[in-house]
Amino acid sequence: MREVSGGITAVKGLLAGAGRAGLKRPGNDVALLYAPEGAAVAGVFTTNRFQAAPVRWTRRQAARGRAFAVVANSGNANAATGPAGERDAARMAELVAELLSVPAREVMVASTGVIGRPLPMKKIEAGIRQAAASLRANGGPAAARAIMTTDTRPKECAVAFSLGGRTVHLGGMAKGAAMIAPNLATTLAFLATDAAADPALLRACLRTAADRSFHCITVEGDTSTNDTILLLATGQTGRLTAANRRAFQTALDEVMTRLARAIVLDAEGATKFVTVVVRGAAREADARRVAMTIANSVLVKTALAGADPNWGRVLAAAGRSGVRFDPDRVELRLGDVVVVRRGRPTAYDPKQAHRALAGPEVMIDLHLRAGRAASTVWTCDLTAEYVRLNAEYTS
Amino acid sequence: MREVSGGITAVKGLLAGAGRAGLKRPGNDVALLYAPEGAAVAGVFTTNRFQAAPVRWTRRQAARGRAFAVVANSGNANAATGPAGERDAARMAELVAELLSVPAREVMVASTGVIGRPLPMKKIEAGIRQAAASLRANGGPAAARAIMTTDTRPKECAVAFSLGGRTVHLGGMAKGAAMIAPNLATTLAFLATDAAADPALLRACLRTAADRSFHCITVEGDTSTNDTILLLATGQTGRLTAANRRAFQTALDEVMTRLARAIVLDAEGATKFVTVVVRGAAREADARRVAMTIANSVLVKTALAGADPNWGRVLAAAGRSGVRFDPDRVELRLGDVVVVRRGRPTAYDPKQAHRALAGPEVMIDLHLRAGRAASTVWTCDLTAEYVRLNAEYTS
Repeated sequence: MREVSGGITAVKGLLAGAGRAGLKRPGNDVALLYAPEGAAVAGVFTTNRFQAAPVRWTRRQAARGRAFAVVANSGNANAATGPAGERDAARMAELVAELLSVPAREVMVASTGVIGRPLPMKKIEAGIRQAAASLRANGGPAAARAIMTTDTRPKECAVAFSLGGRTVHLGGMAKGAAMIAPNLATTLAFLATDAAADPALLRACLRTAADRSFHCITVEGDTSTNDTILLLATGQTGRLTAANRRAFQTALDEVMTRLARAIVLDAEGATKFVTVVVRGAAREADARRVAMTIANSVLVKTALAGADPNWGRVLAAAGRSGVRFDPDRVELRLGDVVVVRRGRPTAYDPKQAHRALAGPEVMIDLHLRAGRAASTVWTCDLTAEYVRLNAEYTS
Repeated sequence: MREVSGGITAVKGLLAGAGRAGLKRPGNDVALLYAPEGAAVAGVFTTNRFQAAPVRWTRRQAARGRAFAVVANSGNANAATGPAGERDAARMAELVAELLSVPAREVMVASTGVIGRPLPMKKIEAGIRQAAASLRANGGPAAARAIMTTDTRPKECAVAFSLGGRTVHLGGMAKGAAMIAPNLATTLAFLATDAAADPALLRACLRTAADRSFHCITVEGDTSTNDTILLLATGQTGRLTAANRRAFQTALDEVMTRLARAIVLDAEGATKFVTVVVRGAAREADARRVAMTIANSVLVKTALAGADPNWGRVLAAAGRSGVRFDPDRVELRLGDVVVVRRGRPTAYDPKQAHRALAGPEVMIDLHLRAGRAASTVWTCDLTAEYVRLNAEYTS
């Protein structure tokens, strides 16, 4: 596997374009992906009870496994917008269908931005027309920019790898967990491969990769109403089969992990990329629960912002996670410094422990000594700057 | 029921004192409560897997239902301190037992402060001796000051009420959820009544009241290693019975609710007291889960800091709580302003909605229209000042 340039349009059989609806300033805010010969599609969607209209539409259409296009807008989430919102999401698909002469039910729709405001459909339609007119085989980077909200940089990557003796490409783009009031931290990620694939197998691979990437990141634990991950397979090169699934999964895991990490690195106000590893759990679900509780602890995250080796907060978060373990056996490392062994502080050097947290990448490694399962979660610190950004009165 | 002065020592048969161990500056940091004729006792303790040594000691002793004294220190939590910490907690009880000529197993111990540092026992012992020498029938306010850590004011109250035709007193003191690195947000609450009570009935009343008061507050969702609530019944006046339990419960609920609210009001960096009411849930546990998810949402709390009527964040928090309800039926009020009805924004006036959040007391009222159960949670906003206080590198 090697990295290649071009973002999502490194994939053969996929065009991308971008247009301006004028919902955010400045720049494009409508992205369009188009597979002229069609594609298999798989999706993963938010588990929030409140699902935006585009999520409802796309979940329904993606279940059939085929797609010609994906259209996404930033600046307005089309969430909590009732039946009118449902019609607007459908209208976005229908307009793309008209412009590209494909069935509307094979057009996936995604939105991100303000909640509770009707989509300004005239503007959206103008943006979609522009995006359709700009479709091209190297349009990935422009599309990746168009889905940004408060992201400070676009997030995209692509790889080439061998699948059943043929060179296959897999690329993707994502928008991040940064948010400014009144937006939510919506994750949108669009992935494509030029391999051929059966939708059911594609879905299985996507779910596995999502569990290993996007489901391992947390900024503040809030799951949005619009989270959408889509994977298209244009079928121009090799074929994904049960026999070669491992190679495909490795590439998909890699691309999605890079995008997920890029989202954390670009989280609002964050100054540190934090890896929380929990090992020695009785079950993987236990390890994950402890790791997520640590990663979402406001006390842990504020201590990290100050590079304070405040291991008591880490242990206390683990202890309230609901997972059973013997507190007198745990071992905790901050970077390379073992600060707790058998549940008690070691004679560590506080300055060394502070240094372990002072850089832009931090590792918290907790061993529960209750079994052999492990889990890793990526997160960031919580700074006063984050609070300022999210307390702004902009509604 | 009427409010009376004197704090916990409004209760007959209870003395209180305070001494200085020198673990915090300035002022006293050891509090002592003493019932010369003994008392029935009930306790509620942290559910964290990491339990401080004094919690382990007191949980064990309180289970027998009798106590002569409670000793508490602030400035050091005696948590994650291993077998030496267990010995230190026992030593605190033993010294009190010697000084007061009572059995050590009837001395309850509580600590709050830094985690992972051995208790400086010489200092602690000096503080305990001072506290014992200062015991007096109006010592409640001094004891309430001695358990403060970063609280800006002591928290205490007392009431008098009629129980079976006799006037009974019930008073209490608490320390709050404020914290400065590397401390944890420990809640300590000590309550006393001069009613006589069977320990089992006392425990049932205490648990019910805790569920209605301390278990309804959250600052950032972190449960500490040292949380301890104790209720002593000195038996100098009326007797609590199954028949008159209701009057006693009402008084206990009132005192504990006042103390719990005082903790939220004094939370670090907080500028608003926030009441989250969730109504119309299928079950009370559902209502509580939704309310707690809203109250602990970093996005909701930062929006509140800016008085931003960002109801999308409230709905999104409810939607990710794991509770089932129909998002198209919910109604949301911010103060008196209905901002969402049937899952969609009303034509509310944004300025009015902003005003509803601009004061020091804020109400978020979510109706799920899924049943008849309700739950109320009290919390505060999350400010940049909170982050600054908790990111300080002081370890």
